[in-house]
Amino acid sequence: MKAEIIAIGTEILLGEIIDTNSAHIAQSLPELGIDLNYKSVVGDNMGRIVETLQRAWDRSDLIVITGGLGPTEDDMTREGIARLLGEEPFVVPELEDRLHGFFTRRGYAMPPSNIKQAWLIPSARALENPRGTAPGWWVERDGRVIICMPGVPNEMERMWANEARPELVRRSDGQVLVTRTLKTLGIGEGTVDEMAKPVYGMPGIGVGTYARADGVHLRIGAKGATREEAWTRILPVEEELERIFGPAIWGKDDDTLEGYVHGLFIARRATLASMESCTGGLFASVITDVPGTSSVYRGGLVTYSTEMKIEYGVDSDVIREFGVISPETAGAMARAARARLGSDFGLGITGVAGPDPQDGVDPGTVHIAVADPDDRTHHLSMTMNQGRQAVKRRAVTQAMLLLRRTLVEAGG
Amino acid sequence: MKAEIIAIGTEILLGEIIDTNSAHIAQSLPELGIDLNYKSVVGDNMGRIVETLQRAWDRSDLIVITGGLGPTEDDMTREGIARLLGEEPFVVPELEDRLHGFFTRRGYAMPPSNIKQAWLIPSARALENPRGTAPGWWVERDGRVIICMPGVPNEMERMWANEARPELVRRSDGQVLVTRTLKTLGIGEGTVDEMAKPVYGMPGIGVGTYARADGVHLRIGAKGATREEAWTRILPVEEELERIFGPAIWGKDDDTLEGYVHGLFIARRATLASMESCTGGLFASVITDVPGTSSVYRGGLVTYSTEMKIEYGVDSDVIREFGVISPETAGAMARAARARLGSDFGLGITGVAGPDPQDGVDPGTVHIAVADPDDRTHHLSMTMNQGRQAVKRRAVTQAMLLLRRTLVEAGG
Repeated sequence: MKAEIIAIGTEILLGEIIDTNSAHIAQSLPELGIDLNYKSVVGDNMGRIVETLQRAWDRSDLIVITGGLGPTEDDMTREGIARLLGEEPFVVPELEDRLHGFFTRRGYAMPPSNIKQAWLIPSARALENPRGTAPGWWVERDGRVIICMPGVPNEMERMWANEARPELVRRSDGQVLVTRTLKTLGIGEGTVDEMAKPVYGMPGIGVGTYARADGVHLRIGAKGATREEAWTRILPVEEELERIFGPAIWGKDDDTLEGYVHGLFIARRATLASMESCTGGLFASVITDVPGTSSVYRGGLVTYSTEMKIEYGVDSDVIREFGVISPETAGAMARAARARLGSDFGLGITGVAGPDPQDGVDPGTVHIAVADPDDRTHHLSMTMNQGRQAVKRRAVTQAMLLLRRTLVEAGG
Repeated sequence: MKAEIIAIGTEILLGEIIDTNSAHIAQSLPELGIDLNYKSVVGDNMGRIVETLQRAWDRSDLIVITGGLGPTEDDMTREGIARLLGEEPFVVPELEDRLHGFFTRRGYAMPPSNIKQAWLIPSARALENPRGTAPGWWVERDGRVIICMPGVPNEMERMWANEARPELVRRSDGQVLVTRTLKTLGIGEGTVDEMAKPVYGMPGIGVGTYARADGVHLRIGAKGATREEAWTRILPVEEELERIFGPAIWGKDDDTLEGYVHGLFIARRATLASMESCTGGLFASVITDVPGTSSVYRGGLVTYSTEMKIEYGVDSDVIREFGVISPETAGAMARAARARLGSDFGLGITGVAGPDPQDGVDPGTVHIAVADPDDRTHHLSMTMNQGRQAVKRRAVTQAMLLLRRTLVEAGG
């Protein structure tokens, strides 16, 4: 089955929004045995929308469209599909009721323009959108399928997962591609590539390496008539790679670094608390993205000022002697967090997010420390100057790595 | 001048890499008076690359290509352009020398496959790439231009800024497009669209509405022979929209909600502290994304557990009487943050990020409170169940709105 993805919207075309929907959809097509050949973006222009749809209709079996389902005159995806197929849109009473319900629950009347969101055409059926007003369309004619979803990522992702993808799974035939990703830490991509060479030759599988923020990923892909058949090709390769890389592999597939670190704490029945300066609470926010962290994460202090660091237990002598941006102060913050919040481990992060230097220290300099149950501190420092938010994100990743190293060394 | 952008690479097509290059290029085209009509992505497949280039060549004056300039067999952009134009690639000695130099400086010999990166075709000249081995191509024939750059973002961005864009500026003639974005809060997109109708007709301008996390944006676009001329078209529309929407407009263009709130605090010489539960430090992280927040933001407490809330000054009677997830507890947290951190205003956020209910409260329920300098609390509650991270982000946006409302009411 040949597929292409079309994102519709001038804001995406002009780069005011980065299109993450297309990547989200693309990633789940291979395991459905669907070959993706093209992705394109077209602005809110009827002529160009129809032209793009026409070409896709001529060359692909499946067209997945995101965007252009809003209530305004700029939203022309429905009109475009109707024109492509020469069909007339009509209002569906049940959809209209649902739409009115959506607005009344929010306590205001539905603007007339929203009625478009209750439209269908003869070849289309509605895809539910519990997260927004615009239902999707599943269009089927002449052996071709058009799936049309809202551009708002969380609405699209839900609709794709619950409505569109399952239907495609039911229809998927022939070769199914299954992939397994192994995530490694602490080894460069070149070396990972060399180490993985033994499995590159193995029949019926493909292996690739990808450098990512959370380390180097190894992706194993295999095709089969069924998922089971594909898996029988993958498993021996996975075992061989686990043998080669051992503990350097920290996770698989959708595992996140924060989820992995959270798991290490659970396994040790250990708790964590943090004191952050330059990352301004980003560490706390990322670790609490993991459901159920309350059993592990006692809490955090965002001590943006030096006074507040001292107020919350950082030894003022340390700050005076080594400076507020120093490994020693990071260590003192880690111990203070541990002491103040009564946790087994404490994390301290101090540095300069930028854009300007601070206390004569260059932006992008960050010192991270972990205090262990014996109140010994473990340190890591980094320098990178790629903008305030990038520095914060990188520092949090490095903090996760330091926590991992400390917990693994602490024996597990 | 009609343009389109093509990104080449299977990793981008399959969504393993998010294509940020196209957005980067697209954003700088309008002020060159260049209309961008299409963006597309094609994998490393010669047939589809040539097909895509052919269509672009037929319908556009300018084609900007990124990716496929590496040394491997998968990198086929040069070959594709040569085939499109029926020209023969040849090795350019100066480029070959430069290439050898690049490798010798790094202390190893050039792999033979890299020789492709010293190629040109008769219609092409090289664009310098000080950050990598692959020069770009500036191809010009039959009144059309193809600009071809590496896919590595920092190589592409440098080449675009120093080589390609200046040349386009020299050639840019006629119409320049200028845009102004007005950001509104508290009104739905459909209603904003209705309210803005009066200006839709105005000559020489385009107005569009876009729903965003920080409210509904109104974008005004106008063309002119010069930026000044374009601005003379935009200003009356901007004034009219400001008249229609009044205080519902909180910012323009690149203004962020956190930057705006930070500005309100600066204007009042007021300080802020926060105590967060379900948002787990995300508020602190977002407010500290604004450079120089240390003058406004005293710091924050991430009190994930009930004990810690009490430990940091939340009245345990309030929690016992109203429950930990209640407007009253949010208020007590706001007052505690204010008292503990000695700030003028305090923010408290408590709720259930999900995915599971907590203390019988549905996931997505969040209570936010701001304590003002007189220790009076102002409240806002929200319910939305779109996943843990979406709830956290939405809650932080709502907190910014409540801070705005409180500070504006506090008189400004």
